[in-house]
Amino acid sequence: MVVVAILAAGKGTRMKSNLPKVLHSLGGRSLVERVLNSVETIQPERRIIIVGYQGEEVKSAMQSIPNLEFVEQTVQMGTGHAIQQLLPHLQGYTGDLLVLNGDVPLLRPETMQNLLKIHQDNQNAATILTANLPEPKGYGRVFCNGDNVVEQIVEDKDCNTAQKQNCRINAGIYCFRWQDLAKVLPHLQTNNAQKEYYLTDAVTQVTPVMAVDTEDYQEILGINDRLQLAGAYEILQRRIKENWMAAGVTIIDPSSVTIDETVVLQPDVIIEPQTHLRGNTVIQTGCRIGPGSLIENSEIGENTTIQFSVITDSTVKSGVRIGPYAHLRGHAQVGEGCRIGNFVELKNTTLGSKTNVAHLSYLGDATTGTKVNIGAGTITANYDGFKKHQTIIGDRTGTGSNSVLVAPITLGNDVYIAAGSTVAENIPDDCLVVARAHPVIKPGWVTKKRESQQD
Amino acid sequence: MVVVAILAAGKGTRMKSNLPKVLHSLGGRSLVERVLNSVETIQPERRIIIVGYQGEEVKSAMQSIPNLEFVEQTVQMGTGHAIQQLLPHLQGYTGDLLVLNGDVPLLRPETMQNLLKIHQDNQNAATILTANLPEPKGYGRVFCNGDNVVEQIVEDKDCNTAQKQNCRINAGIYCFRWQDLAKVLPHLQTNNAQKEYYLTDAVTQVTPVMAVDTEDYQEILGINDRLQLAGAYEILQRRIKENWMAAGVTIIDPSSVTIDETVVLQPDVIIEPQTHLRGNTVIQTGCRIGPGSLIENSEIGENTTIQFSVITDSTVKSGVRIGPYAHLRGHAQVGEGCRIGNFVELKNTTLGSKTNVAHLSYLGDATTGTKVNIGAGTITANYDGFKKHQTIIGDRTGTGSNSVLVAPITLGNDVYIAAGSTVAENIPDDCLVVARAHPVIKPGWVTKKRESQQD
Amino acid sequence: MVVVAILAAGKGTRMKSNLPKVLHSLGGRSLVERVLNSVETIQPERRIIIVGYQGEEVKSAMQSIPNLEFVEQTVQMGTGHAIQQLLPHLQGYTGDLLVLNGDVPLLRPETMQNLLKIHQDNQNAATILTANLPEPKGYGRVFCNGDNVVEQIVEDKDCNTAQKQNCRINAGIYCFRWQDLAKVLPHLQTNNAQKEYYLTDAVTQVTPVMAVDTEDYQEILGINDRLQLAGAYEILQRRIKENWMAAGVTIIDPSSVTIDETVVLQPDVIIEPQTHLRGNTVIQTGCRIGPGSLIENSEIGENTTIQFSVITDSTVKSGVRIGPYAHLRGHAQVGEGCRIGNFVELKNTTLGSKTNVAHLSYLGDATTGTKVNIGAGTITANYDGFKKHQTIIGDRTGTGSNSVLVAPITLGNDVYIAAGSTVAENIPDDCLVVARAHPVIKPGWVTKKRESQQD
Repeated sequence: MVVVAILAAGKGTRMKSNLPKVLHSLGGRSLVERVLNSVETIQPERRIIIVGYQGEEVKSAMQSIPNLEFVEQTVQMGTGHAIQQLLPHLQGYTGDLLVLNGDVPLLRPETMQNLLKIHQDNQNAATILTANLPEPKGYGRVFCNGDNVVEQIVEDKDCNTAQKQNCRINAGIYCFRWQDLAKVLPHLQTNNAQKEYYLTDAVTQVTPVMAVDTEDYQEILGINDRLQLAGAYEILQRRIKENWMAAGVTIIDPSSVTIDETVVLQPDVIIEPQTHLRGNTVIQTGCRIGPGSLIENSEIGENTTIQFSVITDSTVKSGVRIGPYAHLRGHAQVGEGCRIGNFVELKNTTLGSKTNVAHLSYLGDATTGTKVNIGAGTITANYDGFKKHQTIIGDRTGTGSNSVLVAPITLGNDVYIAAGSTVAENIPDDCLVVARAHPVIKPGWVTKKRESQQD
Repeated sequence: MVVVAILAAGKGTRMKSNLPKVLHSLGGRSLVERVLNSVETIQPERRIIIVGYQGEEVKSAMQSIPNLEFVEQTVQMGTGHAIQQLLPHLQGYTGDLLVLNGDVPLLRPETMQNLLKIHQDNQNAATILTANLPEPKGYGRVFCNGDNVVEQIVEDKDCNTAQKQNCRINAGIYCFRWQDLAKVLPHLQTNNAQKEYYLTDAVTQVTPVMAVDTEDYQEILGINDRLQLAGAYEILQRRIKENWMAAGVTIIDPSSVTIDETVVLQPDVIIEPQTHLRGNTVIQTGCRIGPGSLIENSEIGENTTIQFSVITDSTVKSGVRIGPYAHLRGHAQVGEGCRIGNFVELKNTTLGSKTNVAHLSYLGDATTGTKVNIGAGTITANYDGFKKHQTIIGDRTGTGSNSVLVAPITLGNDVYIAAGSTVAENIPDDCLVVARAHPVIKPGWVTKKRESQQD
Repeated sequence: MVVVAILAAGKGTRMKSNLPKVLHSLGGRSLVERVLNSVETIQPERRIIIVGYQGEEVKSAMQSIPNLEFVEQTVQMGTGHAIQQLLPHLQGYTGDLLVLNGDVPLLRPETMQNLLKIHQDNQNAATILTANLPEPKGYGRVFCNGDNVVEQIVEDKDCNTAQKQNCRINAGIYCFRWQDLAKVLPHLQTNNAQKEYYLTDAVTQVTPVMAVDTEDYQEILGINDRLQLAGAYEILQRRIKENWMAAGVTIIDPSSVTIDETVVLQPDVIIEPQTHLRGNTVIQTGCRIGPGSLIENSEIGENTTIQFSVITDSTVKSGVRIGPYAHLRGHAQVGEGCRIGNFVELKNTTLGSKTNVAHLSYLGDATTGTKVNIGAGTITANYDGFKKHQTIIGDRTGTGSNSVLVAPITLGNDVYIAAGSTVAENIPDDCLVVARAHPVIKPGWVTKKRESQQD
């Protein structure tokens, strides 16, 4: 039985931001959401966010997450003081308390599970998460006996030369037997340089205390400024991309690519440089994506190629070629074997299989049959200035260059719209439609005009 | 006289791929093609690919390469077993055998030449390629006397502490006097952990054996998974880009740029970030290319600038400005001093010099004279739903906005097509053509319509 | 009182360029301009560029900078010889001379101020800029007593093993009391390997001489080839980006972003990957810029988002959404809350607030009111083949798909242009305009045509 408390009351001055630090986004999720995600698998009984600075913003940003509790720390007097605020809320609680920092977003669920397991298996009063930093300067050092039982925690500034050699540092993540902690919490002192109540002091007053190392020291890095935010993103991205490469995805230039954790890729997908995959995107085997593409919340079928294009909230079937410079959005659905060419936008449009929209077109609120050919410059006039209307196009129908389909409109099967035609009425099957003004030709006009311009 | 054998029978399990490992692409060429390229300059008498896993796919992918031989290794029982398969094919052969790995794609021709030269100059029975790895763990160590004569090869796991300090490792690339090798090959044993026939064992049974170091240890890196594939690409790209920078090309942010080996750049070309140059592309002096551009199999003349554009299979003369967001393909040919602006596609189109296609146009299967001005939104309707047709445009001719030229069509010199005109007939020199419907103006309509919408 | 002399006479052979080395661009400014910038805050009395190789090109490129003097060094015989050329120009001068290299572009103004201050406070005859290089090989080592008084300068090749351990190197940047230098300059010898006159020799002949360390050794790196040019750009960019991150700007993937020093960013701006900010660009708080965008000499108001777009010489107000694939140029001005969508170009165009130009449009030389809706494919025909003309559009007016406005033209308030209409006359308020040819519908045509094609 475990309650999770997340410290999220700090000001985050070095972020230089109007946004509370823990709400800053790291790869599409806020820092504090990431901390919450890391404890999902341990299924905490309660989750308490300790808020202070800009607490209302933090609460409001997190209100859609169910079953969160918020406790206010009205003045910021240290980590010990923050946890003291829990005393009225955990009266009589007999389980464990896991204390996390809202600005330490890279902890993995496995690490949290391991910390809790060792805490509970050993019936510890407290268990500290530790990490072996290559450059431990500035952190408190943790000294243990051979069984990971903590013998001493020494602040960096109090370390002697020998102690400074110890790279095992206190990550500030703790698991406590609440009853033990509750007894010592009220007696913490502020006799330190910062005049604050330190939770570390509570650790030294309970027993037994053990330390658990993280597998990867980068997990415990905190975010205090934008440079560290960028650094954390790089760590996170390297994790994700190395996992996908191990799973059979080719990423040609990994450093230029970003992939959200929520994305799913099948083996033998090839990701070209400068490509960004976001949200609930799924890409099936044999696809080649990029360069210069952004795909968000979209499903891409097998063997589809996408080059220099933006696709959001859309579905593309197999064997489709898209780009360069195409834009699919608003639940566009592209059938098998279609070709979407340059300067084409599809919005809330469904294309039947083997349909081509090859150049300079906007299809909005349209549905086509199969083997349709949309000519260059064709536009569905879906908005009459007041409402949006539908365009329906039958199988094997073709539109000429720069034609306009004024919605609501239905073109039957096997219809041809001549180039330059604006059509505002329904057209039955197997018709040619020509709406074109008669050309007036004025010989000699250009010479005359040029002469007049020189006057 | 040398025969080359390339080991290409392995499964490549860690690639997690449907494609045989040696067929994976590294910078536009498969791994095994790269290995073949590295031995081109030594002009081998015969080139034998030893295939096994997915051997038919490998053969089929390589069938366009002339004079390759394939030998099948039906079961994979080690490198020694692979080379045993050559015995029936090299009966009576009295020259040398160079053994390469199909998944070691970074070897340079100079290295192969040097290996062979030392082998032949010294009349060695075998010559091993060695490399000095910064982290030799896992590799067999090669111990030589001062004259590079091999005294011992010790597998990593059999090394004592002192031997582990030796960073000179066996790269698995060998040159053999075939007659010597052929004698010992049938007697190889499988008394090792893997129960396989090792080619290294053959090396220890012939004499004299020498070792030759690679200049750059990165050459001998093998590809076993996608992370190593990405790593090899980075090494290859660094080589290429540093060579071009040394030759007088400015690459502003080299890490974001990729350049195929087949590309030729003249001095004083400037490459902006996120630019990709592929295939048989040639870029002449004074050009500025990028950012965000892809140029493939195209020739670009002097002092041309290209920004955020995609150009494939095309020719661009000097002093042209292209982009942002232009797309040239299908043997487009752009004359001197042209301007190709945003959202313009040229396909199989030839532009005379000083011609402008500045905005939102598609020209397909068209040929223009000089000093032509193609208005915004002009489209050549080159496809009538059945066939493609040509558009011919004379010198100094101009088309108005959103005009359509319905091919086949010829416009003479000094023709003006008025804005919004669709023209489907040939136009002689010096004509204005206006094909425009008479506007009907309905005062008060908008107010009335808005009121009706509010009901 | 200080005179600055910049050595800019060298050939720069390794650049392999037609352009003199000091004119090569580093982040939008030439190397020698950067050197000039580094001494701006010390307000030199005179600034003398010593030119030689391609001296006319150097002079011509710098002629727009006021109050520069050029002194020619007709043959290149070393740094001492270069400074000897100043003797006739500085007769009777009693102040200090600061000697800089035109190919050392990363010096910061603070470093120059500090060098000069220490020189003057200590009344030195000469003060040398030194740096502590991690790899000092190749550089002359500077040996000082505890008070930074120089005792010895030893060339790398003359260093004994102990001396080679000294990482403090001579950066080749000097401040001299001119009167002292002028006395020894004529007596320099060429008894060295290069047979050149070395300025370092002058340093050893005056007294007292002190050394001043740069804070960051990277400041003193010289540019001799394109690889070093790329390296310097990376250093410069890291400086700039780390400064902006410290000031509250989120840069998601800093390595893929470039920002000129002249750009100003407010806190809580978010820069997405592959974004380039250049020239006099100002971006206000709350904006999200990129990925894949280039913004040059433009002002962007609060909370605007720009994705995959190019914006030059333009002004965008707050709350605007731009892209993907939009292009603003030529003093485009976009009002509050506008939406500029895909494949839209604005040139010398002013949009009133809450105006939408969502797809496939070119607006050139146009001015709109507020709440205007420009339909997909709308084009202002601003060029009649001879001159550019204006388009004026009133409040709440809308244009239909693929409509053309033939300038000069004025549309009133509350005008609706029907889809496919080309309008060439002024339209008063509250009118619907329809200019559309009557459609001719030919049933059975498609079937017949297809049959005929199969013959």
